[in-house]
Amino acid sequence: MSFNTFGHMFRFTSFGESHGAAIGCVVDGCPPRIPLQAADIQKYLDKRRPGQSRFTTQRQEPDTVKILSGVFFDEASGQQVTTGTPIMLQIDNVDQRSKDYSAIKDKYRPGHAGYVYDVKYGLHDYRGGGRASARETAARVAAGGIARKIVPGLSVRGALVQMGPHQIDRTRWDWNEVDNNPFFCPDPVQAKFFEDYLDGVRKAGSSCGAVIEVVAEGVPAGLGAPVYAKLDGDLAAALMGINAVKGVEIGDGFGVAALSGEDNADEMRMGNDNKPVFLSNHAGGILGGISSGQPVVARFAVKPTSSILTPRKTVDRYGRDTDISTKGRHDPCVGIRAVPIGEAMVACVLADHYLMHRGQVGEGTAWPFKPGA
Amino acid sequence: MSFNTFGHMFRFTSFGESHGAAIGCVVDGCPPRIPLQAADIQKYLDKRRPGQSRFTTQRQEPDTVKILSGVFFDEASGQQVTTGTPIMLQIDNVDQRSKDYSAIKDKYRPGHAGYVYDVKYGLHDYRGGGRASARETAARVAAGGIARKIVPGLSVRGALVQMGPHQIDRTRWDWNEVDNNPFFCPDPVQAKFFEDYLDGVRKAGSSCGAVIEVVAEGVPAGLGAPVYAKLDGDLAAALMGINAVKGVEIGDGFGVAALSGEDNADEMRMGNDNKPVFLSNHAGGILGGISSGQPVVARFAVKPTSSILTPRKTVDRYGRDTDISTKGRHDPCVGIRAVPIGEAMVACVLADHYLMHRGQVGEGTAWPFKPGA
Amino acid sequence: MSFNTFGHMFRFTSFGESHGAAIGCVVDGCPPRIPLQAADIQKYLDKRRPGQSRFTTQRQEPDTVKILSGVFFDEASGQQVTTGTPIMLQIDNVDQRSKDYSAIKDKYRPGHAGYVYDVKYGLHDYRGGGRASARETAARVAAGGIARKIVPGLSVRGALVQMGPHQIDRTRWDWNEVDNNPFFCPDPVQAKFFEDYLDGVRKAGSSCGAVIEVVAEGVPAGLGAPVYAKLDGDLAAALMGINAVKGVEIGDGFGVAALSGEDNADEMRMGNDNKPVFLSNHAGGILGGISSGQPVVARFAVKPTSSILTPRKTVDRYGRDTDISTKGRHDPCVGIRAVPIGEAMVACVLADHYLMHRGQVGEGTAWPFKPGA
Amino acid sequence: MSFNTFGHMFRFTSFGESHGAAIGCVVDGCPPRIPLQAADIQKYLDKRRPGQSRFTTQRQEPDTVKILSGVFFDEASGQQVTTGTPIMLQIDNVDQRSKDYSAIKDKYRPGHAGYVYDVKYGLHDYRGGGRASARETAARVAAGGIARKIVPGLSVRGALVQMGPHQIDRTRWDWNEVDNNPFFCPDPVQAKFFEDYLDGVRKAGSSCGAVIEVVAEGVPAGLGAPVYAKLDGDLAAALMGINAVKGVEIGDGFGVAALSGEDNADEMRMGNDNKPVFLSNHAGGILGGISSGQPVVARFAVKPTSSILTPRKTVDRYGRDTDISTKGRHDPCVGIRAVPIGEAMVACVLADHYLMHRGQVGEGTAWPFKPGA
Repeated sequence: MSFNTFGHMFRFTSFGESHGAAIGCVVDGCPPRIPLQAADIQKYLDKRRPGQSRFTTQRQEPDTVKILSGVFFDEASGQQVTTGTPIMLQIDNVDQRSKDYSAIKDKYRPGHAGYVYDVKYGLHDYRGGGRASARETAARVAAGGIARKIVPGLSVRGALVQMGPHQIDRTRWDWNEVDNNPFFCPDPVQAKFFEDYLDGVRKAGSSCGAVIEVVAEGVPAGLGAPVYAKLDGDLAAALMGINAVKGVEIGDGFGVAALSGEDNADEMRMGNDNKPVFLSNHAGGILGGISSGQPVVARFAVKPTSSILTPRKTVDRYGRDTDISTKGRHDPCVGIRAVPIGEAMVACVLADHYLMHRGQVGEGTAWPFKPGA
Repeated sequence: MSFNTFGHMFRFTSFGESHGAAIGCVVDGCPPRIPLQAADIQKYLDKRRPGQSRFTTQRQEPDTVKILSGVFFDEASGQQVTTGTPIMLQIDNVDQRSKDYSAIKDKYRPGHAGYVYDVKYGLHDYRGGGRASARETAARVAAGGIARKIVPGLSVRGALVQMGPHQIDRTRWDWNEVDNNPFFCPDPVQAKFFEDYLDGVRKAGSSCGAVIEVVAEGVPAGLGAPVYAKLDGDLAAALMGINAVKGVEIGDGFGVAALSGEDNADEMRMGNDNKPVFLSNHAGGILGGISSGQPVVARFAVKPTSSILTPRKTVDRYGRDTDISTKGRHDPCVGIRAVPIGEAMVACVLADHYLMHRGQVGEGTAWPFKPGA
Repeated sequence: MSFNTFGHMFRFTSFGESHGAAIGCVVDGCPPRIPLQAADIQKYLDKRRPGQSRFTTQRQEPDTVKILSGVFFDEASGQQVTTGTPIMLQIDNVDQRSKDYSAIKDKYRPGHAGYVYDVKYGLHDYRGGGRASARETAARVAAGGIARKIVPGLSVRGALVQMGPHQIDRTRWDWNEVDNNPFFCPDPVQAKFFEDYLDGVRKAGSSCGAVIEVVAEGVPAGLGAPVYAKLDGDLAAALMGINAVKGVEIGDGFGVAALSGEDNADEMRMGNDNKPVFLSNHAGGILGGISSGQPVVARFAVKPTSSILTPRKTVDRYGRDTDISTKGRHDPCVGIRAVPIGEAMVACVLADHYLMHRGQVGEGTAWPFKPGA
Repeated sequence: MSFNTFGHMFRFTSFGESHGAAIGCVVDGCPPRIPLQAADIQKYLDKRRPGQSRFTTQRQEPDTVKILSGVFFDEASGQQVTTGTPIMLQIDNVDQRSKDYSAIKDKYRPGHAGYVYDVKYGLHDYRGGGRASARETAARVAAGGIARKIVPGLSVRGALVQMGPHQIDRTRWDWNEVDNNPFFCPDPVQAKFFEDYLDGVRKAGSSCGAVIEVVAEGVPAGLGAPVYAKLDGDLAAALMGINAVKGVEIGDGFGVAALSGEDNADEMRMGNDNKPVFLSNHAGGILGGISSGQPVVARFAVKPTSSILTPRKTVDRYGRDTDISTKGRHDPCVGIRAVPIGEAMVACVLADHYLMHRGQVGEGTAWPFKPGA
């Protein structure tokens, strides 16, 4: 990863600003002969797309993705497939309202990147957050749509597990509920409560944070490259790099500090198919930076949207004290739309490590070993 | 970062196993003409060195670092300096007791990397954890000793803020206390309590987790490269990649989820030296992946040592159910020695981004801007 | 460099096939506040553009470049500048005639990449060479248009110095002549001869090779990173990676083998501005992988176009012997259009190393040193 | 590749100066379970080792390599194998005579890197060329010893094909002769002549250049990653980056310029084992940056050693005109010892691309395709 390029072998380079002509990414290193249509990607973009409920920004972006390169009709399979060359994914920006920003263009919104961009670069595109806008995450979701097709049998699902100070009840977790409410919440009771809660936040012109959990199942054991490209290290970078994220956990996360060694041990027993069964998953599926074959479990915390109605003290780009409040269109809880983004990043990290592992080790080893051997 | 190489511009490649001949790293991309003696590095290694109190492993490793390349006597300054070429740092292993491991060499210790290394690579060096041993972190601390010299005015300090379920009282935080107890704990009252607590854990043959906080002061505003080499993304990778770490936070971390947008806003006012003053630091010094000039604050959670006396269920490399308990020499709380390691990783990330920023932007910009300009 | 991404710090990732919707690249790592209009890039694309004389392919591509991101209006300077974020450069494909290829789609043209793409990827986009087409080089030329603006005072010029077996007379070298003939030839006499020569080749349905020389003036001393990112190593990769190139030389190139150490020595004397003057430039401006301040001189050989009328023996993708001759529209001497491509690659390598050097060393050193210091 | 790290997936990071304590490299990304003893590497180092005939420097370096990490005893195969973790290869420097250099430490030797290192870094280790010394190439040869074991069935052999202005007669090429003379020359007649020729050069205190050819057989078709990590691009970088190299060719190299398209075409016919047979190999085994299955043929030109007895005009580090002649111990023709170095670099590039290809594409495709499929 460097600058605007993600990944070691499954790589994508993203581009675009919130109010520019288009955003997108070039996906490189993708294996050839993977069936790929725009619709395979579009379905994930549709999950992230703004304007789908009163709980997200009312900006109307169809987020229609175009595949401009890297696919071709394969006579052998009779369908469009990847060719192994760069796949260009482009999404036009449609519903920019840049004049919303002219009133505040010289003022820094606390919590936004305007000040640091100005200090670093000497200017910044202030329209809708420019490059620092969460709109860039559409490129990640698009890349994730391809990544999901690379690891055979992989399933990556995300859910909102906390909104503001309110956590879900994990005993009610039902993956089927995630698509039945506008919050990607697996607890139907709490989801109902979140409606009222977030309506209150929204009407007050305020905002709240959230915690998202992503679970990847079907991850083969052995993915991860010691010691500076560990699977958990790369997941942490990928998730912390999502806009507004301030914390990342794997497995029990910060909870491990309070556990004893005895309680934290994920004991093992042999299962039926010559693979071990772990009796618990405190580790979140990763040991020593390498996947264990258990579900990979990651969580991340999203801060409350910085754009709020209540005036805040700030300075402007000319070094003058002032106040600011944000009108525009914004998400009261950006954590909601972070669910498909977190899923995409986890899928990309896993695809990347799947290819790296195959490169270094090939088809892998036959475990368990034979005692005489 | 890739495989065993850390960093974009300030890079180091580490090598070595716990019971091999030596461990160390090659530091590359370091600026020239930085005064450097082995003693500059040794002082940080001495903080991480085992066997210094009854609360860490009794393995006696002097951890003496040798600089085998990349330095030369500079006539202009009359001292040994870096030359801009690779700096080889080597630390001999001295006190291996590999036979401690022969009894358990075929069994996987729950929480250790033995199983995943075997599945990934088809074998692993079981002596003392091999490559997955925390002994590798000596290489990081050594590299960090150089990294600290690169960003002018930078100070990076770490502290243990939680042991087992017991947090410190932040109102008693005193950096001067960190070196007055064997835990790097800034709260002298709680440090006293930790002695008794950890003695109990140790005598029971058990272990406990910890939370470490690292604070970097003097970080210039503007470090960080959107969007896949953000400063917080790289910090998250660097800290999550430390052995036994399961969670990373920047600033308020997971606490941000429960904050309102109003409370989370770090308001700004102009200070005296043409720089803004932030009225709080919920962001932990990083906005949009770029440093804001405030102290960079990171926290990470370390799981309890997996090596415990109480037998745990496991399997062996031949796929047979068995039990295991670990005798050997181990830290009851590896979180303690993680303090200098966390400091080193934060220093390395900051040095790396300092050079990347200088490469792309040069000497930077003059903020605040002139209104007429 | 990896897969489809060029560069360490000044990086670009290219995408697109000859007959796809568009080609282009995402330029990343570019310094901010560099004035940039599409026209700054267009002028170099216009040099490479096909269909400008009877000596290049008659495919009519306007090669109009669009800048889709990474630029913004700078109030301070009153013009559009780079922002430091990714610059997306897109060129639509207009004049594809894919049906030209249907007759030969299953047959491999000797010298083309069709066979190796099929073996590697299991399929390939056969239309116009797909990803292996020299059409991809438009992306390089576009990126080069930005690269040229990064190193202050840099001038990069290329010239065709050999066509088929016919070399130019270097005593007649006149840079002003390069734009006065369709061959970028600095020798006006030989350029005249080339017209007749190439007409003959073209009318015979044959093709010929060429040698191109690129000279970069104003290269600061000190660029290049030992030992696996040497300036000459990166130039060699960049030039050898241009389609149809089979050889690269720096300075005297293969001629050095026949020189004695005495004759090869570029002797030095102090010049007027506290810089040394070299009395010759056998080294081509690079010593030990680092620029010396002399002009950087690189040459590369381009093979004759593989698409010829005379039937050649080949096989098809089903493993059957057959013959092939190519009709379509092709350059009789691809070396001609390689001139602006070679210039672009040299400019990109120099910009990349300029930023890397600035990152590692900063504003550099004051040579000559003071004896007392 | 970046700074002192070679490679994408098969990577090595080298360190060390000519007169420092040691040189060596850390090899990373190597597949596990490859049998590896120091002797496997030593045999290639012995080919490069100085002081073996009167035609190379009389510096006596045993160049004994130690493997400090990354190998372990494998119970399954009963031998020492690679573990998949970093392999540290270290070679102690033994026969430094640093005082040889004190007389000339302030003067730049024309053709050496002293001046550019001083300008770039502000100082340099002048003893024996420091980091710019060809002594660093021992690290490459050591890494190459491992690389040779990665691609199944690969053979990489090099030969000196020109010394000074004198080329070999290719009709007398006999690989068996390469080890029968001190020049790695495959033409026994010319080798005899080279003895007298080089004796004359040596006695005159002069030096001469050379051209080396490296041929890799058993290279699978399909290696190479378009378009900025092409196989030929990476070979060019790897060979041009060897000390004193000024030109690189693949296949017919610069000779292609003079060929017609008809003559340059490597025609194809189906062979016996479902693979095509090429009727010639002008392409040197690489098409479109991807290996074709033919032998990969690369050539590179080595300049005459810069250290000569005849005084040359130069300047010193304080900007004063002066003269210099070099006494010390030097190779009259460094091209000789470049043969095993060139072999090593070619082996490393091929190993690297073998792993990259396996990562992206897996076990590859079944060519030829079935017509009905």
